[in-house]
Amino acid sequence: MSYHSRTAQQPSGMPVHKYRPFADQIRVELPDRTWPTKQITKAPRWCAVDLRDGNQALIEPMNAARKLAMFELLVQMGYKEIEVGFPSASQTDFDFVRMLIEEDRIPDDVVIQVLTQSREHLIERTYEAIAGAKQAIVHLYNSTSVLQREVVFRSDEDGIVDIAVQGARLCKKYEEGVPETEVFYEYSPESYTGTELEFAARICNAVLDVFEPTAERPVIINLPATVEMATPNVYADSIEWMGRNLRYREHVVLSLHPHNDRGTAVAAAELGYLAGADRIEGCLFGNGERTGNVCLVTLGMNLFSQGVDPEIDFAVGGGIDHVRRVVEFCNQMAVPERHPYGGDLVFTAFSGSHQDAIKKGLDAMEARAAAEGTDVDHIDWAVPYLPIDPKDVGRSYEAIIRVNSQSGKGGISYLMKSERDLDLPRRLQIEFSQVVQRYTDAHGSEVTADALWRIFTDEYLPVDDASDLDAWGRFALRGTRTTSAEEGPDTLAVDLVDGGVDRTVEASGNGPIAAFVEALAQVGVTVQVLDYAEHALSAGGDAAAAAYVECAVGDRTLWGVGIDSSITTASLKAIISAVNRAEREAAAAR
Amino acid sequence: MSYHSRTAQQPSGMPVHKYRPFADQIRVELPDRTWPTKQITKAPRWCAVDLRDGNQALIEPMNAARKLAMFELLVQMGYKEIEVGFPSASQTDFDFVRMLIEEDRIPDDVVIQVLTQSREHLIERTYEAIAGAKQAIVHLYNSTSVLQREVVFRSDEDGIVDIAVQGARLCKKYEEGVPETEVFYEYSPESYTGTELEFAARICNAVLDVFEPTAERPVIINLPATVEMATPNVYADSIEWMGRNLRYREHVVLSLHPHNDRGTAVAAAELGYLAGADRIEGCLFGNGERTGNVCLVTLGMNLFSQGVDPEIDFAVGGGIDHVRRVVEFCNQMAVPERHPYGGDLVFTAFSGSHQDAIKKGLDAMEARAAAEGTDVDHIDWAVPYLPIDPKDVGRSYEAIIRVNSQSGKGGISYLMKSERDLDLPRRLQIEFSQVVQRYTDAHGSEVTADALWRIFTDEYLPVDDASDLDAWGRFALRGTRTTSAEEGPDTLAVDLVDGGVDRTVEASGNGPIAAFVEALAQVGVTVQVLDYAEHALSAGGDAAAAAYVECAVGDRTLWGVGIDSSITTASLKAIISAVNRAEREAAAAR
Repeated sequence: MSYHSRTAQQPSGMPVHKYRPFADQIRVELPDRTWPTKQITKAPRWCAVDLRDGNQALIEPMNAARKLAMFELLVQMGYKEIEVGFPSASQTDFDFVRMLIEEDRIPDDVVIQVLTQSREHLIERTYEAIAGAKQAIVHLYNSTSVLQREVVFRSDEDGIVDIAVQGARLCKKYEEGVPETEVFYEYSPESYTGTELEFAARICNAVLDVFEPTAERPVIINLPATVEMATPNVYADSIEWMGRNLRYREHVVLSLHPHNDRGTAVAAAELGYLAGADRIEGCLFGNGERTGNVCLVTLGMNLFSQGVDPEIDFAVGGGIDHVRRVVEFCNQMAVPERHPYGGDLVFTAFSGSHQDAIKKGLDAMEARAAAEGTDVDHIDWAVPYLPIDPKDVGRSYEAIIRVNSQSGKGGISYLMKSERDLDLPRRLQIEFSQVVQRYTDAHGSEVTADALWRIFTDEYLPVDDASDLDAWGRFALRGTRTTSAEEGPDTLAVDLVDGGVDRTVEASGNGPIAAFVEALAQVGVTVQVLDYAEHALSAGGDAAAAAYVECAVGDRTLWGVGIDSSITTASLKAIISAVNRAEREAAAAR
Repeated sequence: MSYHSRTAQQPSGMPVHKYRPFADQIRVELPDRTWPTKQITKAPRWCAVDLRDGNQALIEPMNAARKLAMFELLVQMGYKEIEVGFPSASQTDFDFVRMLIEEDRIPDDVVIQVLTQSREHLIERTYEAIAGAKQAIVHLYNSTSVLQREVVFRSDEDGIVDIAVQGARLCKKYEEGVPETEVFYEYSPESYTGTELEFAARICNAVLDVFEPTAERPVIINLPATVEMATPNVYADSIEWMGRNLRYREHVVLSLHPHNDRGTAVAAAELGYLAGADRIEGCLFGNGERTGNVCLVTLGMNLFSQGVDPEIDFAVGGGIDHVRRVVEFCNQMAVPERHPYGGDLVFTAFSGSHQDAIKKGLDAMEARAAAEGTDVDHIDWAVPYLPIDPKDVGRSYEAIIRVNSQSGKGGISYLMKSERDLDLPRRLQIEFSQVVQRYTDAHGSEVTADALWRIFTDEYLPVDDASDLDAWGRFALRGTRTTSAEEGPDTLAVDLVDGGVDRTVEASGNGPIAAFVEALAQVGVTVQVLDYAEHALSAGGDAAAAAYVECAVGDRTLWGVGIDSSITTASLKAIISAVNRAEREAAAAR
């Protein structure tokens, strides 16, 4: 058999018969498309929907404090349109919008946006929510896809258009009740990507006929990829087609709202913007339903990297790490390590050839700046493997591969987790950062990852070399025998090395830790366990465990760490670690 | 001041002057492009580079065990071309390649690929590495971008072409030393995206002249977006241009290798494939330098969702969660919650309107299947907000029910933490929410915190009333005796109630969990522990501990929970919880 037939890929056996190509469902044809020859030269109008579409996808939705932190971050960064909630569907959202208005927290140059379904009692409630705002965008939506028409609304095209048009009319009616508020409109044919283009244009035009857009009062038509269903060039074709088929086009703000089901939301937004859109809705770091909304950070920084001002400050508050921290606080979700521009690993170079090329690139920039009699910040950025200067977002190229005494517990705990799989409890992070601080004060300012691990093992873990046991401390664990029954306490017999002498102690308690504390009391050590945590170092029942125990030993409160294949032994080792540390400190103080 | 001037976006103040648009650096013009009208109808040739480009970007590169786990996963999934290392640059990689060959671990239908720079001693070493393999791809590269030529190599175009051509000739020379190995070639103009197209074509053609591709022995030309520098349509244009300008085109395998600096690697791969490429290099879940290589899972599953067989089995070993676990073990990095197809949250729906539409979609499919007299697995998948059937990758749709949704104060996990001090792991949160869903479906939508606790104890914890033990399940724990020594395994004697009968089982393992798994095997229950976590319920050594264990029991993956004053007992109870739950489910299914 030839190489080619021998190594041919084989059918996967997965049930592909259940799926049809997008092109068989929705026809998008635009042979005279113009977008592929265009370039992006200015920022779109941005709308941040973190407080609505992002918030609705959180396991723990934001409370008022987190909502306010997000709102204030978005304002500081320079977003002018902020969707703040779905006030008719959620009392929390309603209260938050009222708080923003009544406490006068919305700057004059910012407009809040609120979402509503096309139902009268919801629309009425929406206007109650925005009353008193200087300006607001009311965002009306209903679902228009073939599938939702069939299975959710069981309605024909006329019926679906009627829902939208009636909603628009009700908006105009209730608008009369808020004369002090300048109201603008946005309409979304929700599930647009599953909607025939002709029908999408028909329903948008019907809504526009009600809202009557003008130069002074344009209307936003938002075309969401509620579910991303095809390659991003197809979305771009559909946007260019819609731009040609919307009435009042010059007074319509054509808006995109991509989701990321196929991992191409950023591309869909960029190609859709090339195709004639004016505005993009998304969330910081791509939070949102399922795979997320399109990431506003990536979109903005992509513009920045091309010399186009995103009109958003991603270095606000000291840098992109600040933005990330606020977002992580609000969403209670971590930004992944490889997230463009903001992830922990995106300005790192691990390969020697990359590091070498980066160094040569940085050197060449210095030389060029010197030759031109200027500063490197005034010449074009050109360094291999670094698309932008990390300094421009408050980061540095070496930030992750080295820890220094200024980087604090964040960097240290990051390295302990990423390099050693140890997930240190928060108070232990603080304690250990002080240990590292003492080391760097004594030995210089930079600590490599390897040095960090040596500092950790020196402080918390037994020495490998048994002959050097004194350096570790008074106790070492040799073995245990435990008995546990449904009624009554556990019993523990423990073989210890105590100051170089083997001894066995028996004790009981309502678990091995309690029994071991009792055993230590018998040898004159008073320990109280204040907190502990334990986790596997990797998957599998055979994996080692790491145990962290916070103890009061005498008048000292400190942590111990134990690593062992047995979760029980790891815990007892952690207690010994704490006790030995306390005894070492007491000896050093004498 | 009018609304429009008042709310206009403002300059960010960021140093945009340092950056130039890509179009000012590299000219890519293709007004007669054909790719935007094409559609993807078959899978490309895949090449997985997790063991090389992915591995090189890890903080802690894989050891031999993790490398082998990755290699075997890739083979099981159906990848036929696997880049296994850079053996001339790394002794670990060299040893790994030798191990694969000498232990005969490479199936006949799989070809390994090895990377080498274009330098004689590295090329020589590369052939030493592959000697004895049935077949291998030698992947030669040198950097060709304008920037790297200037600052790294300080060479003109002729000099850079000479590096490549000399390397190709040396490959042919050293190939004579491995007559038993069928050698194929790949050439990469590294940093292709920063290279003028004319020069990229010139250097590739010069290398092709040396390798002389034929139908029997095609040559791979790989065009890496080493750094992603422009929107993905520009990459696609460049690929179509190269396809028209490469000599021997019919015997060239045109290959893509996108990175994700701008967040558009998946789009670049898809549009580049439309533009005529034959092959795509990437990594599972997008591991790789900085922002990562293109994600092979997303690309393959995107094809699947369009009814195109990816020729890769993403449900291997029980489902995409299995693939993810192996990848997380090998890379020691977590797959983010919102990663397409594989993240924890991608098949969830939090919003009531989404849940309602999904339920109606699922009902409609049942009705349609019934009307057609067939099974839902034999009709087209069509459910709002779910691009694919989660079952097809061994997952399930998770409707996350919010408790206290009116107050918005928190979800289930928030209440479990705040009211009960239980810090449920993320996947357990999702699992438990489905239990709650079943309850609310049966009893109405309102769930109080007390009701939530009853649902949790009913599902995961033993009944208090010993007379009602049958309701809990097959097993209950009466007592344990363990022995642990510095050397050798722990031994465990465990007193169990097994179906109402007291019995004692003895087993050993490298910790109580491993020993208990062995003990359960002796009574006919096969359990594999996939993950666990444990924490104290409050301060103090006497405090109870909560243990959470994710287990594979038979073909089911599910969580168990144990609460006990002993951390050891809590863990064992958690395993019993998982086993009893699995047995209850099996009984209910009978």
